[in-house]
Amino acid sequence: MDETESKIVAFVLYPGLTALDLVGPLQVFSLLSQFSPINPVVVGATTDPMPSDCIVQLSAGATFDEVPHPFALVVPGGAAPTLKALGDEQLVGYIRSAAESAEIVASVCTGSLLLGAAGLLDGRKATTHWGFYQVLERLGATYVADRWVEDGKFIMSAGISAGIDMALHLAARLTDDATARQVQLVLEYDPEPPFGGIDWTKVDRDLMVPMVNGWLAEGLQDRPQLLTKLGG
Amino acid sequence: MDETESKIVAFVLYPGLTALDLVGPLQVFSLLSQFSPINPVVVGATTDPMPSDCIVQLSAGATFDEVPHPFALVVPGGAAPTLKALGDEQLVGYIRSAAESAEIVASVCTGSLLLGAAGLLDGRKATTHWGFYQVLERLGATYVADRWVEDGKFIMSAGISAGIDMALHLAARLTDDATARQVQLVLEYDPEPPFGGIDWTKVDRDLMVPMVNGWLAEGLQDRPQLLTKLGG
Repeated sequence: MDETESKIVAFVLYPGLTALDLVGPLQVFSLLSQFSPINPVVVGATTDPMPSDCIVQLSAGATFDEVPHPFALVVPGGAAPTLKALGDEQLVGYIRSAAESAEIVASVCTGSLLLGAAGLLDGRKATTHWGFYQVLERLGATYVADRWVEDGKFIMSAGISAGIDMALHLAARLTDDATARQVQLVLEYDPEPPFGGIDWTKVDRDLMVPMVNGWLAEGLQDRPQLLTKLGG
Repeated sequence: MDETESKIVAFVLYPGLTALDLVGPLQVFSLLSQFSPINPVVVGATTDPMPSDCIVQLSAGATFDEVPHPFALVVPGGAAPTLKALGDEQLVGYIRSAAESAEIVASVCTGSLLLGAAGLLDGRKATTHWGFYQVLERLGATYVADRWVEDGKFIMSAGISAGIDMALHLAARLTDDATARQVQLVLEYDPEPPFGGIDWTKVDRDLMVPMVNGWLAEGLQDRPQLLTKLGG
C-alpha cells in the first residue's frame, strides 16, 4: 500500500470489538476523505470476516503487515473481547510498532486499554469507557473523565459513541473547522438524545467492576502476570 | 430462524449502504438485547461480505428468506448505492413483504426512500437526510424536518447519525424509559459535537440536488419509469 500519496488512517479491527467504536469514527473519516487527502483503511490480522459485539461481521481491507506505518492509528474498544485482546501479542505488537511512527494515535472507549497494554500510556492523561477506568489506571495512566483527552500525539475518547465527537475534533485538526463542519452536516450530526444527556452525578463508575474483573479473569487466564497487574 | 421466542429486529443490509446508518441503531439494539428479549439480526440477499460506503465490509447473519416476518424492520440508507437500490426488486420486495407483517417499520437517513419505493409512504409524514428530501416527496410522502418522524407503525430518522437517537426512542417504546437510559449509559451517549449542533438557518437543503439527480440518472438508467418519477 502506498503510504505517501495521502495520509493513511488505520482503523484496527479485531474479533469481538464494539462495532460502533470502529464505524463511528470511520464514517467521519470516510466523509472527510471526500474533502481532503485522507485515506482511511481498516487493518486486521486477517481480511476474513470477524465477529463484532453486534451480530454484524466486519472485514478489514488490509493486514497489519500491509500497513506498518500509518499516519494515524485508531484503536476501537469493546467489552470482554477487548480485555482478552490485551493479551494478544500480535495485535498489541502491531499497535506498539505502528504507534511509534504514527503522528496521531487515537483510541475509542476501551481501545485505550490496548494502548496501555502496548506500554504507551505510562504517566499519561487518558480516558476510556466510564466502567473501565480502574483498568486504565492499573496500566499506568491517569484517568480523566472528559469526552476526549489529548496528551502529546495521543488522543483518546470516552465510551463507544464518544468516538464520533473525537473524530470530528480530529477532522478539524487535520483540515480546518469549516471542513469538519461540512462533514458534520453530511453526517447530520445534530444529536437529540431522547432523554437528554447523561446525568453523571447519578452514575456509579464502579458499577461494572465485578463484571470487568470477571472478564479479565476469563480472558487473561493464560497471561497470569498481566492478569495480576490488571486484576485489582 | 425461530421468530416466536423473542422480538426479531431485522436490519437490512445491501451493497454500498452507509455503515453508520446500520451500525448506530444496531449497537443500540444489541445493548438492548442484554436487558430485554429483543433479537437483532442483520438480513441481506446473501451472507457474503458486502461493501459499505466506508472501506469496511459488512456481512449479514441471515438471508431475506430466513427472516420473512420480523417483529421490526430497520432500513438503513446511503448515497448513490441507495438510490440505485430503489430499482432493486429483490431488496424492495423484501422490504414490502416484511413491512406488511412487521409491527414496527423503521428507516435511517435515505432508507425512507426504500420504504417509499416499496409503496409504503404514500400520503405519510416522513423524513430522510436533508439533502434528499425532494426524492422523498416525489415518492408521495410529506417531508418533515425533524430528528425522527412517526406515522402509524412507521418511524423514520433524519440523516446518518440520527439513527442513534431514533433507536434510543424505539428502545424506550419497546421496554421503558429506564431501560433505554441504561442502554444510553452503556453507549456513553452524552454527545459533545466539537462545534455544537447544526445551525439549520444556514443550511441550503437544495445544495445536493445536482449530485442527487446525477446519482439517480446513473443508478436508475435501466429503470426509466422510476427515474422519470424521481428525476425531478
